[in-house]
Amino acid sequence: MQKKGRLIVVSAPSGCGKGTILGRVLEDKERFYYSISCTTRAPREGEINGVHYRFMSREAFERELAAGAFLEHATYCDNYYGTLNAPIDEHLAAGQDVILEIEVQGGMQIREKRPDATLVFIVPPSLEVLRERLTKRGTETPEVVEKRVAQASRELAFVDQYDYCIVNDDLDAAIADMFSVIRAAELRVDR
Amino acid sequence: MQKKGRLIVVSAPSGCGKGTILGRVLEDKERFYYSISCTTRAPREGEINGVHYRFMSREAFERELAAGAFLEHATYCDNYYGTLNAPIDEHLAAGQDVILEIEVQGGMQIREKRPDATLVFIVPPSLEVLRERLTKRGTETPEVVEKRVAQASRELAFVDQYDYCIVNDDLDAAIADMFSVIRAAELRVDR
Repeated sequence: MQKKGRLIVVSAPSGCGKGTILGRVLEDKERFYYSISCTTRAPREGEINGVHYRFMSREAFERELAAGAFLEHATYCDNYYGTLNAPIDEHLAAGQDVILEIEVQGGMQIREKRPDATLVFIVPPSLEVLRERLTKRGTETPEVVEKRVAQASRELAFVDQYDYCIVNDDLDAAIADMFSVIRAAELRVDR
Repeated sequence: MQKKGRLIVVSAPSGCGKGTILGRVLEDKERFYYSISCTTRAPREGEINGVHYRFMSREAFERELAAGAFLEHATYCDNYYGTLNAPIDEHLAAGQDVILEIEVQGGMQIREKRPDATLVFIVPPSLEVLRERLTKRGTETPEVVEKRVAQASRELAFVDQYDYCIVNDDLDAAIADMFSVIRAAELRVDR
């Protein structure tokens, strides 16, 4: 019998290197499946259905929502966003670990509905370092940087609700930590 | 402030490679402290007090026991065996992970008293493989091998009470798994 995969939920404030860390993890396409969100917003240029998002009509989304098909959902700028249960369960049953990237409110919904999920929070060494990193990128105005730091500060309050906290001080160490957490999740005894 | 270390409890049936795996882990003497058991039995030739065991008189053991100083204890062949809380707490406070090797009954006592402990069980790929390995050692009679396999079978029933289960199929993979579990324990969010 194939061993069931693990649901790994990853949250992080913007600028914590989550994308880079998960990019490395997701290189192993046999072991991992990346959960794709659904949205009712229109595709932007270059966005591919089934890769960046599953694009759905508002009617289809609400129908699935009423049927309880979503593990979590939220509305943002008048559009729905959500994660369907079915693809996750299929890939877990096939023995793949499912990586689900989500903000903290979604993470809390999953905590509630999937007590077997492993929740990982990636944090910067400090808000000061985060501010520096965001500033160095040079893509944001100082005002936007400050907004992001304030947002990060609010999100960091949720770390207590997560199973694991990885401090992204050194990128290679943070990647190794992510692999340790995933491997440990795989080795966890089912109760 | 120094980050507190983690208490890692390791159990395994005889012949599962626990000694080899822990030997590798314990090479890092700064990061890890190996918890030494106390016993009232007499030292055997070559055994050093404070290295193999802390050798204690029966009176001293009973006094400490009455004072609640032991995390776990057992009697075997009319002698006491036990683990003191104090050295564990000292090393955890100093930021070291404490590795505690123990049989399943002791593991269950620790589960009860230290819900923050991480319990790891090392198992053979199968009882058949265990029988083969014990036979190949050539140090035991076939009767003793069978007794050990039967004992292993009884102990394996406790795996559900542990947090992690490592199958020692390939030694290097099992060592890597042990390090993943320990690192994950270090990254775990305190609730």
